[in-house]
Amino acid sequence: MSDCVFCAIGRGETDADLVAYRSGNVYVVPALLRRENNPGHTLVLPVAHVTGLDGTPPDLLREVFETVARVVFGVREAYGAVGSTVVQNNTAPGQVLHHLHVSVVPRFEGDAFRIPEPDLSEAPREARLARAAALRRVLARKA
Amino acid sequence: MSDCVFCAIGRGETDADLVAYRSGNVYVVPALLRRENNPGHTLVLPVAHVTGLDGTPPDLLREVFETVARVVFGVREAYGAVGSTVVQNNTAPGQVLHHLHVSVVPRFEGDAFRIPEPDLSEAPREARLARAAALRRVLARKA
Repeated sequence: MSDCVFCAIGRGETDADLVAYRSGNVYVVPALLRRENNPGHTLVLPVAHVTGLDGTPPDLLREVFETVARVVFGVREAYGAVGSTVVQNNTAPGQVLHHLHVSVVPRFEGDAFRIPEPDLSEAPREARLARAAALRRVLARKA
Repeated sequence: MSDCVFCAIGRGETDADLVAYRSGNVYVVPALLRRENNPGHTLVLPVAHVTGLDGTPPDLLREVFETVARVVFGVREAYGAVGSTVVQNNTAPGQVLHHLHVSVVPRFEGDAFRIPEPDLSEAPREARLARAAALRRVLARKA
């Protein structure tokens, strides 16, 4: 959709420097909102504007989750996470962004991870650029 | 692994009546623990004992998420959910069950969904059988 920011990034019209990884139909960017105890929250998105897993063509679904699996590996290496939690909404109540996006939240001992997180804050662009660069380096090594 | 309950269900050694759907290498069962406001919490699991998305062979990963997409559709139809939230842990702190399982949590208006949920309770077996039957009917119709 023309007014969707995730479509615009997907098409390369904006924020190309925030893209940590791209396959043919899927891309990876740091989340805008920051969880204090979970640095490196990352989004995996299709370029196409699909809105839920059940409406996503099978080949694209496969490409999205192959990329999610890469990022699950990547956030351990790039951010020193002990693991990750993957979260994805399908027309959930309160959902704001409808372009399909899969969150990979890096997990750390004692992080007190919770949903919803009341203390979300916007990550400065410089911080997101640094996160993207670190993940890009790791994923570039994993051919 | 021989002492893993999800391996045992996957092999058909126990709880076959709780299995709502099976493809070649993946199966679907109601979650044991119940969220009061989110009836119909469902798990999608590979038969094989893999422990994280990044260690799952690509073909199996595809089959798992094709099945997740089916269940995202299914919980709307079977349980009247408005949508769903998909959650999956990869060696997250506090994680208890290490056989890969993807949660599809049906979502309802005003459900106050949260992770962690402090008021989890074990769903009676009869309730889980009814949930499995309802989902089985819907997924059987969706060839």
